[in-house]
Amino acid sequence: MTEPLPTGSTIGILGGGQLGRMLSVAASRLGFTTHIYEPGANPPAGHVADRVTTADYDDIAALERFAASVDVITYEFENIPTAALDALEAHRSIRPGRESLRVSQDRLTEKDFLSGLGLRVAPYNNVETVNDLKRALETVGTPSILKTRRFGYDGKGQSRITSADQADQAFSDIGGAPSVLEGFVDFTHEVSVIAARSAAGDIACFDPGENVHKDGILATTTVPARLSHAQRTDAVLMAAKILNELNYVGVMGVELFVTSQGLIVNEIAPRVHNSGHWTQQGCNVDQFEQHIRAVAGWPLGDGARYADVVMENLIGDDMDRVPDIALEPHASLHLYGKAEVKPGRKMGHVNRVIATKK
Amino acid sequence: MTEPLPTGSTIGILGGGQLGRMLSVAASRLGFTTHIYEPGANPPAGHVADRVTTADYDDIAALERFAASVDVITYEFENIPTAALDALEAHRSIRPGRESLRVSQDRLTEKDFLSGLGLRVAPYNNVETVNDLKRALETVGTPSILKTRRFGYDGKGQSRITSADQADQAFSDIGGAPSVLEGFVDFTHEVSVIAARSAAGDIACFDPGENVHKDGILATTTVPARLSHAQRTDAVLMAAKILNELNYVGVMGVELFVTSQGLIVNEIAPRVHNSGHWTQQGCNVDQFEQHIRAVAGWPLGDGARYADVVMENLIGDDMDRVPDIALEPHASLHLYGKAEVKPGRKMGHVNRVIATKK
Repeated sequence: MTEPLPTGSTIGILGGGQLGRMLSVAASRLGFTTHIYEPGANPPAGHVADRVTTADYDDIAALERFAASVDVITYEFENIPTAALDALEAHRSIRPGRESLRVSQDRLTEKDFLSGLGLRVAPYNNVETVNDLKRALETVGTPSILKTRRFGYDGKGQSRITSADQADQAFSDIGGAPSVLEGFVDFTHEVSVIAARSAAGDIACFDPGENVHKDGILATTTVPARLSHAQRTDAVLMAAKILNELNYVGVMGVELFVTSQGLIVNEIAPRVHNSGHWTQQGCNVDQFEQHIRAVAGWPLGDGARYADVVMENLIGDDMDRVPDIALEPHASLHLYGKAEVKPGRKMGHVNRVIATKK
Repeated sequence: MTEPLPTGSTIGILGGGQLGRMLSVAASRLGFTTHIYEPGANPPAGHVADRVTTADYDDIAALERFAASVDVITYEFENIPTAALDALEAHRSIRPGRESLRVSQDRLTEKDFLSGLGLRVAPYNNVETVNDLKRALETVGTPSILKTRRFGYDGKGQSRITSADQADQAFSDIGGAPSVLEGFVDFTHEVSVIAARSAAGDIACFDPGENVHKDGILATTTVPARLSHAQRTDAVLMAAKILNELNYVGVMGVELFVTSQGLIVNEIAPRVHNSGHWTQQGCNVDQFEQHIRAVAGWPLGDGARYADVVMENLIGDDMDRVPDIALEPHASLHLYGKAEVKPGRKMGHVNRVIATKK
């Protein structure tokens, strides 16, 4: 696929959560229709999509029908089974490409990849047995965090270790899965770069946002982030290096720790990213449209930031505050239409425009 | 219906064009699902709606099923047959209410209503026969415009008269339908106020936009409009008077001629309006969300303008310029996903942010 997709084409999206939902809306703004593939019933993205396929990722026939019905395939999450990707790719291009998924699906592969590019990451060791963990604790030290290599998100699949004698407990906490022990990084704050690369190889980065987490889940992202001019440049160059190496097409979230010794890559996500939701109010073209543009072979849009914004996630019971937020000046609500409120569940977000500039 | 609709409720929308499409997206941002009722196949709004009913407005059974499936009903156009409204209203509230439709469906009723409120309108006369027209031309004079009382839009159902001897031709041009002869207004420019009123009776107006038409179709809307402070206040007060009198719930477009003697009401539209599309880039809450908030019984949002914006309609062949517009800085594209390009057909629009402020 080398020509830009004409308006009226169909974008296939794997995953029907809030990211797929906002991708679907962005696709509609460019005149595309969308087809969502999602195992779960009544997915949030389905409310704003032209078509929904409800089927599992091991249903090869459903995957093939889905692929045949769309013009290009993208996704809202990185943990798509390899066999499903094989079935899909036999029919249609998948963007971002397979290499991005291979690298980001496994924390060890990702860290090796980033180190190999000369980027700094936290000290880490591969852990496959509890004895591996004990040896790793000798080199990496404590405090440190044991993280499963696969399927971790929002703080899940992680165990914090403060002394070496917690090794057995920690390994048991994460279910004895293949893991990585990550050493302590003395960072002042975390920022993320939402970076985009077009099929033609052009790169555009949104202004970095500053992230605050609570209970392992992103709570707020604020732009502008506290960064020196040099750090801001570094952040963008690091993201560009990653995207170019992967021959990446689409939007990627790159999380960085800010330390007195410079920026350290925490992790990358080959998709639109929660920390990029502020772009809906602060830019002419937001991260969702930027991703769709790239995936559709279009040129990237103007993502220059024209506003100071604070994005706040609405998690679980935060939904009780919606009536008050609806009354707030300078606030834009984005609710995900999820049927059930659960503790820790991302139900929506609000972008508050603090100031505008140009 | 007095309580605010909870998120997860369903908004029924009559009409599946671009206005219904953008209403549907706005509804999703507040966690609502939408159900579109539209006689035509493959409606643009259907691409971003949870459900679509394809049926005619005389299909009472389909209307009743539609009404039963939603929590409240709104519409994207004013020319809904009365019998259809009766069938719907037996089951669910229609917002804005019936009186707004009755007034705006007939140009004569509308002008009588506006005059009755003490608002200035162009000189006008009722025309039911060619002899009515000849008599009307004696009082209203030329140049003047003969407009059908019902079903006119985008310059359709209109005939311009420059001398009295064109009466027969003009009456024949508009098909001999019941009409209004409108006298010439010496205006410098046209502006429109996008006004909203909540179920609780609160009113909020977006900053007036300045409209330029081409071939009878809106070409651009620019904010801020050229208006004195006093005119700006007048415009808002006039709009508020109309909404209050109708006990209106929702967004209304009020078109005004700016003359040296003050503001004259051109026409009103009981729905979101093409001249309010700029709000998508210039405000925290746009006209579509403002309408959905009102219809759902929510409080109105913050529609304060924080940017200078020019909205340009993309009509027919303007679609050929989309690849260039996609490269423009400060431009946000909104395409409607219409299957076929036709001359005079609104295919999309672009909002260009000229400057921001706060």
